[in-house]
Amino acid sequence: MSYKTDAEIAQSATMRPIVEIAAKIGLKPEQIEPYGHYKAKINPADTAALPPKQGRLVLVTAINPTPAGEGKTTVTIGLADALNRIGKQTVIALREPSLGPVFGVKGGAAGGGYAQVLPMEDINLHFTGDFHAIGAANNLLAAMLDNHIYQGNALDIDPKRVLWRRAVDMNDRQLRNIIGGMGKPVDGVMRPDGFDIIVASEVMAVFCLAKDLADLKQRLGNILVAYAKDGSPVYARDLKAHGAMATLLKDAVKPNLVQTIEGTPALVHGGPFANIAHGCNSVIATRTARHLGDYTVTEAGFGADLGAEKFCDIKCRLAGLKPDAAVVVATVRALKYNGGAERAKLGEENLGALEKGLPNLLKHIDNLKNVFGLPVVVALNRFVSDTDAELKMIQTACAQQGVEVSLTEVWGRGGAGGEDLARKVVEAVETRPNHFQFAYDTGRPVQEKIRTIAQRVYGAAGVEFSAEAAAEIASLEKLGLDKLPVCMAKTQYSLSDDAKLLGRPEGFTIHVRGITVSAGAGFIVALCGNMMKMPGLPKAPAAEKIDVDENGVIHGLF
Amino acid sequence: MSYKTDAEIAQSATMRPIVEIAAKIGLKPEQIEPYGHYKAKINPADTAALPPKQGRLVLVTAINPTPAGEGKTTVTIGLADALNRIGKQTVIALREPSLGPVFGVKGGAAGGGYAQVLPMEDINLHFTGDFHAIGAANNLLAAMLDNHIYQGNALDIDPKRVLWRRAVDMNDRQLRNIIGGMGKPVDGVMRPDGFDIIVASEVMAVFCLAKDLADLKQRLGNILVAYAKDGSPVYARDLKAHGAMATLLKDAVKPNLVQTIEGTPALVHGGPFANIAHGCNSVIATRTARHLGDYTVTEAGFGADLGAEKFCDIKCRLAGLKPDAAVVVATVRALKYNGGAERAKLGEENLGALEKGLPNLLKHIDNLKNVFGLPVVVALNRFVSDTDAELKMIQTACAQQGVEVSLTEVWGRGGAGGEDLARKVVEAVETRPNHFQFAYDTGRPVQEKIRTIAQRVYGAAGVEFSAEAAAEIASLEKLGLDKLPVCMAKTQYSLSDDAKLLGRPEGFTIHVRGITVSAGAGFIVALCGNMMKMPGLPKAPAAEKIDVDENGVIHGLF
Repeated sequence: MSYKTDAEIAQSATMRPIVEIAAKIGLKPEQIEPYGHYKAKINPADTAALPPKQGRLVLVTAINPTPAGEGKTTVTIGLADALNRIGKQTVIALREPSLGPVFGVKGGAAGGGYAQVLPMEDINLHFTGDFHAIGAANNLLAAMLDNHIYQGNALDIDPKRVLWRRAVDMNDRQLRNIIGGMGKPVDGVMRPDGFDIIVASEVMAVFCLAKDLADLKQRLGNILVAYAKDGSPVYARDLKAHGAMATLLKDAVKPNLVQTIEGTPALVHGGPFANIAHGCNSVIATRTARHLGDYTVTEAGFGADLGAEKFCDIKCRLAGLKPDAAVVVATVRALKYNGGAERAKLGEENLGALEKGLPNLLKHIDNLKNVFGLPVVVALNRFVSDTDAELKMIQTACAQQGVEVSLTEVWGRGGAGGEDLARKVVEAVETRPNHFQFAYDTGRPVQEKIRTIAQRVYGAAGVEFSAEAAAEIASLEKLGLDKLPVCMAKTQYSLSDDAKLLGRPEGFTIHVRGITVSAGAGFIVALCGNMMKMPGLPKAPAAEKIDVDENGVIHGLF
Repeated sequence: MSYKTDAEIAQSATMRPIVEIAAKIGLKPEQIEPYGHYKAKINPADTAALPPKQGRLVLVTAINPTPAGEGKTTVTIGLADALNRIGKQTVIALREPSLGPVFGVKGGAAGGGYAQVLPMEDINLHFTGDFHAIGAANNLLAAMLDNHIYQGNALDIDPKRVLWRRAVDMNDRQLRNIIGGMGKPVDGVMRPDGFDIIVASEVMAVFCLAKDLADLKQRLGNILVAYAKDGSPVYARDLKAHGAMATLLKDAVKPNLVQTIEGTPALVHGGPFANIAHGCNSVIATRTARHLGDYTVTEAGFGADLGAEKFCDIKCRLAGLKPDAAVVVATVRALKYNGGAERAKLGEENLGALEKGLPNLLKHIDNLKNVFGLPVVVALNRFVSDTDAELKMIQTACAQQGVEVSLTEVWGRGGAGGEDLARKVVEAVETRPNHFQFAYDTGRPVQEKIRTIAQRVYGAAGVEFSAEAAAEIASLEKLGLDKLPVCMAKTQYSLSDDAKLLGRPEGFTIHVRGITVSAGAGFIVALCGNMMKMPGLPKAPAAEKIDVDENGVIHGLF
């Protein structure tokens, strides 16, 4: 049996004109801004004039990711298709992919198999240009900052305490650490600098948390970019950069409308890093989706310890959103990997490894139910190699927590493979109790907020703060920036801060090595380990195999 | 009397839906790729299926530019509007503006007054994303090159002889010269590097000279990026980068259709630097415009010594185009400035200064007529301060060369102010002899080609080559890259290589300090002086005043 690749399935799918997809959610052709015939930007002001549906909000999250792959985006898309099939008008809200991984290791982020958003190639390449606009805004701020120093430095910025970095949408390790301003005196002021990938820019986080264009501009002005020599903070607004930055983002801030293979409307908009930022699509897109559909299905980056926690404690808190249910995606293979099975042997039945890995899933379920108070459904992405005994073990353990497990086959069958999941999600949303709450109160001291996340969500025994982190916290308190939610930046592979501790580790300590503030986005970042804000290319980059023929048909993309 | 600004005129103009503009040139709604309702990309394959009009090609060029401003783009647009008014179906082919100047000193490049292309703000900001795509392709090549070195350097690239630089669409002097690859061993290989503004990237030149997507990919592969330690050349194709680069450019390569205030179709596409590159819009756009209209009006960067020479010797030669006439734009004020009048006193009659500055215009006319063999018309952009005696002096001098002068008022009156010019252009195209030829033969030695341009076009007494330039020429001969046309990179302000020698200098020497090759674009660059490939921001950047309100309306842009 031979399978089609994601790209082959996407290329052979028949897309409907985007005006037809827009019509499904009540928008007339003149109310959308088409980008070609299959993508469009929609203006939140136009959608606001439509009757509000205030749809139910379903978060799709996952166990800690493994090299085996869980299929969170695929389930998100398949679930939405399935909800539409069972009569719930559903709109998807997803993140936009970054160009970096497309040319690096693995490729796309538009779902897989028969659960994809289209046009997959466009979405994975420039799409509607949002990331480029975000990069331009990031780099305009950088250029204005260095120009300020060069042109007399009226704000007395300390060139050694510039926090703002430049950005490019590329995996380019060469730019992680640079010395800028080399050359002659007219070529700027020499200082250490560096580039992050655009998804790691605070502009991306600001973009995704802003309620509207006015709020976006306000937040851009609040970005802390440097310290003056006397230690006082310098914000983007002190450089008068926020107006021009918002101007660069005025179109980008409108959500992008596309479709799934089955024609479900999808808003694909924004895509901040899920470690140093909050890893969710834009607030504007999620709100618009809720306005337009009975159900909104969305997802958050990495596993539930990072993605779902930040979705609840940062995005929902700042945007005033209340989720109606959470879906945790897992696979038998990934749970066995979490239990110590070798990657090459994940296709073999291994109840021992499954039993050891299963507590990872159970901990995430427990968090979603008992820390955040949400109804939970488990989506188990089926593989042919899964055995009945393995499936049964998972179902039994989940049943003990009062949580239903649905076996999904959305990769191979699209929405039809997710109808059982859809019915279970609807049942959970409509009949189960929802006591949604945040994991912590932002008014508490920074250390306490971090301890609460580590102990309640990760199951840590305690938290250690480095001297540097403690000093930074004191500094934030002085600046009055300590009453913000905390964005934990730790490895996605483990509930702990050690990527090798799989399954459900216990008795571990979380080490907070540094603290930074994203004052524009509105959160404090707790760095647990070295967070890579600029990936590199592998020895044989995917780019070497990507090609386009004379008719514009792309080859070798995934 | 108070004048509206360009932005106010643009914002108060009523645009027609882009499908109506497309219909004017025979394209159906499904044949264009809309970007919003007022911009579209058109596929050359679709236009090729329409009956070919093989329109007349009119180049708009100018005297050497002065701070007084000549209005070359404004005349280009106004002439096209006027040609349409007198019954010649005309399509414009223009360059896209760069973001850098928008936030730097002066702003837009979409014409002025009532001779503008719309939507002016979009065109000056991200437009359809072409420049971002070009930047991404440029930076993918850079990332792949450094990754190659880092991952073992199988090609034995000399890190000190990397020619390829990174690019960003921003005026950012801080990035002119950097040291990249700092930090730890995993952070790349330390080496000198730098960024150019995207318009200065060779990818931009390649983009503008490519005939189609296949030719684009071929040229991208030909880019010379570095030398190995044994001195052998390393091309982009050796890094297997050209396929992915072309993939990034597959949509960008389609021309952008917009409209003038009067509804004339305009293809605004590509915008290479006019010093280290050839300064013309894309070959694909010019060919498409000719295919679709009776007349195509286009322009080239800077004065006729740089812009028109490269338009003829590089663009027309490589694309097999034959211009039908040239229009030289001048103003009384700019000619007086060329004759030594002070900038503050350009509003006063000064026949002495005019007489001294006029030979600048006459030399350009002579070149276009006698070096390139083209029918010529002079467009004199009128200002209220111009006196009859001044106008008469110009008309008399031009008449002695057998060239007609048309007084244009397209800034204030749009196409109506250019009808006289349009009639004179049609008369020149249809009745005057055309002996179009190139200034030199590409088969001649590099030094000889440069001497021919300097002596015939600039009026220089001779050319001096630095030892470095001579060595580079010898190296190109060894690589077999010497039979290409030459792209002169010199100051735009003077016929000489000394920006201060205004008017028509004589007896001067052109100093060729360096030679580089743009092997992908297909030309040799002769560097006469220091060419700035990355501008800086001024003390008070325009960005500080640019703002957007909560409704998305931009303020302070020009």
